[in-house]
Amino acid sequence: MDRAFIFDVFGTCVDWRASVAREVARVLPDVDAIAFATAWRAEYQPSMARIRSGARGYVPLDILHRENLERTATRFGVTVPDPEELTKAWERLDPWPDVQKGLAAIRTHGFVAPCSNGSIALMTRLARFGGLEWDCIVGAELAEDYKPAKAVYLTSAAALGLAPDQVCMVAAHNYDLSAARAAGLQTAFVPRPSEHGPGQTEDLEPTEDWDFVAPDFVELARAMA
Amino acid sequence: MDRAFIFDVFGTCVDWRASVAREVARVLPDVDAIAFATAWRAEYQPSMARIRSGARGYVPLDILHRENLERTATRFGVTVPDPEELTKAWERLDPWPDVQKGLAAIRTHGFVAPCSNGSIALMTRLARFGGLEWDCIVGAELAEDYKPAKAVYLTSAAALGLAPDQVCMVAAHNYDLSAARAAGLQTAFVPRPSEHGPGQTEDLEPTEDWDFVAPDFVELARAMA
Repeated sequence: MDRAFIFDVFGTCVDWRASVAREVARVLPDVDAIAFATAWRAEYQPSMARIRSGARGYVPLDILHRENLERTATRFGVTVPDPEELTKAWERLDPWPDVQKGLAAIRTHGFVAPCSNGSIALMTRLARFGGLEWDCIVGAELAEDYKPAKAVYLTSAAALGLAPDQVCMVAAHNYDLSAARAAGLQTAFVPRPSEHGPGQTEDLEPTEDWDFVAPDFVELARAMA
Repeated sequence: MDRAFIFDVFGTCVDWRASVAREVARVLPDVDAIAFATAWRAEYQPSMARIRSGARGYVPLDILHRENLERTATRFGVTVPDPEELTKAWERLDPWPDVQKGLAAIRTHGFVAPCSNGSIALMTRLARFGGLEWDCIVGAELAEDYKPAKAVYLTSAAALGLAPDQVCMVAAHNYDLSAARAAGLQTAFVPRPSEHGPGQTEDLEPTEDWDFVAPDFVELARAMA
């Protein structure tokens, strides 16, 4: 088998917003759970930016999620009863409805693996929670850097024992695919128009001529056939 | 889930000797295939020893297998028609008969992952070939070192998001379990008395009081229940 499909996970495979909000609502019943989940996620890029720039050494995303929870709780003026436990909300994210079936179909065309900024530990737990059957896990932890750093895509292809052009990055985010293409990978865009809720304005459409564009993973598998 | 079982692969999960010999016989019909496979494997420890000692930087086992094939072919006075292709024999190793069923049962008790000296690429292909359903792949490539170096066990536990004592190393080799125990892991011994053929003298019995001892993976799953 000389082909692989590697997947962005948060937003592309799983609905982090509704899933994290559900866990927030459970432990912080007096907070606007969607607003809290959104604010928590808004800390994601700035916290990784410090690592991408070299200002901070690599730490797994689990640590950043934990730190970003503190920051978000402070902003909302709330005390989280068990912040370690709430951080594990990121291990219990619902896949979009097409993902299980689509992944199984795509897997007949090549290896499938998450290429996420999440850690191996986090991806392992998400896969169990959501019934996602991966061949292996690649991504940020192997490169000790965060997407869209080129090293993440190249290290992931190398770990699969493949050349970059034998690997297709699948994502709902154009910036992720731009970086993957710049690293020599193939690209597939699957929009997730409700990732950020009803008011979403970004990533509704492909911004470049990606190798594949499909409305969901099941259709993507058909397009690849 | 706060428990994981990590597995040695060559010898413990798969019958490398018969499988590699089968591929050798196919491309080198005039050679004693079992002797060739055994000699090829005999280069395994010395080639890793140079990396463990720091004399050479980490390279994946696929490269060592390729180099060791050259050395073995020279000793046997043969020319391998396509050495790249024959090296892939290590990607097509038959699991022992109890492995698929036993792994599935063990997986109900925790995460399961190979902790091999083989690369992620190699483990991914072996899993597809043998129908082995892992949660993720840990082992040498994450640590950029080779077992029994302590870093391999500790890095593997950390990648799973677990403390060493939440992780159980499963192996048919006492030396692997000694090193895992020294790193703080739990240990399980499953002898594979025909790994080295009918004359095998090593690793027929446990040499320490390992946490679990079972004749195969199915029985091991029962012992863990």
